[in-house]
Amino acid sequence: MNLTHIEHIGIAVKSIDEAKSYYEDVLGLECYAIEEVEDQKVKTAFFMVGQTKIELLEATSDESPVAKFIEKKGQGVHHIAFAVDDVNKSLKEAENKGIKLIDKEKRKGAEGLNIGFLHPKFTLGVLTEFCEKQ
Amino acid sequence: MNLTHIEHIGIAVKSIDEAKSYYEDVLGLECYAIEEVEDQKVKTAFFMVGQTKIELLEATSDESPVAKFIEKKGQGVHHIAFAVDDVNKSLKEAENKGIKLIDKEKRKGAEGLNIGFLHPKFTLGVLTEFCEKQ
Repeated sequence: MNLTHIEHIGIAVKSIDEAKSYYEDVLGLECYAIEEVEDQKVKTAFFMVGQTKIELLEATSDESPVAKFIEKKGQGVHHIAFAVDDVNKSLKEAENKGIKLIDKEKRKGAEGLNIGFLHPKFTLGVLTEFCEKQ
Repeated sequence: MNLTHIEHIGIAVKSIDEAKSYYEDVLGLECYAIEEVEDQKVKTAFFMVGQTKIELLEATSDESPVAKFIEKKGQGVHHIAFAVDDVNKSLKEAENKGIKLIDKEKRKGAEGLNIGFLHPKFTLGVLTEFCEKQ
């Protein structure tokens, strides 16, 4: 497996408006995109810092995985995404090493990336995503 | 404030031995250092991915903040550290914008870096650290 860098850190927030003001006004980062990902029932806001994006996640429905995460754990880091050359190959490699997958095959994520998730019960509590550019 | 990149992501784990095998054997990262930070009562293990380190944190005492974190939230991402040019200046800037600080002044952290923490109640649930090279 070849993880080149941390593509993004997903952070669950109650309100993107409130969080955006912290990331912009206090940390001095620039929000360069806001996007809704309908099948995940989230609104996302993106900030770049070095090689890595901060991806804020606000639930757009009580059924959203992000709403459930906040209910259980509070606001905070929701997942870490590693950049890889080939998501399907990396998923298969992880599975061959005994890791349960959430996604058996890559699918479309925010910003047009191909993505796939590993199951957090097999990754020591860190929900882990692989991302590749199309 | 000038955050140049994500210096590291701190991840609370029950056992560095167990976690190390996941990060090395599954994700293919190399553990390049193991260090004990006595005043935080933790053992740490470091892996590099792009510009960013993964810093695994194992409590060396039940009184460690990491032991308390795992008791409350389970294993997972404990904090995010941003690289800055000047920790004291960045702490002061954050304080002037209404953020409560854990550290009023920089102090020594792992790997000889100067570090300072913001209070997570003011940073939307993400324990946030600033780091500078000496």
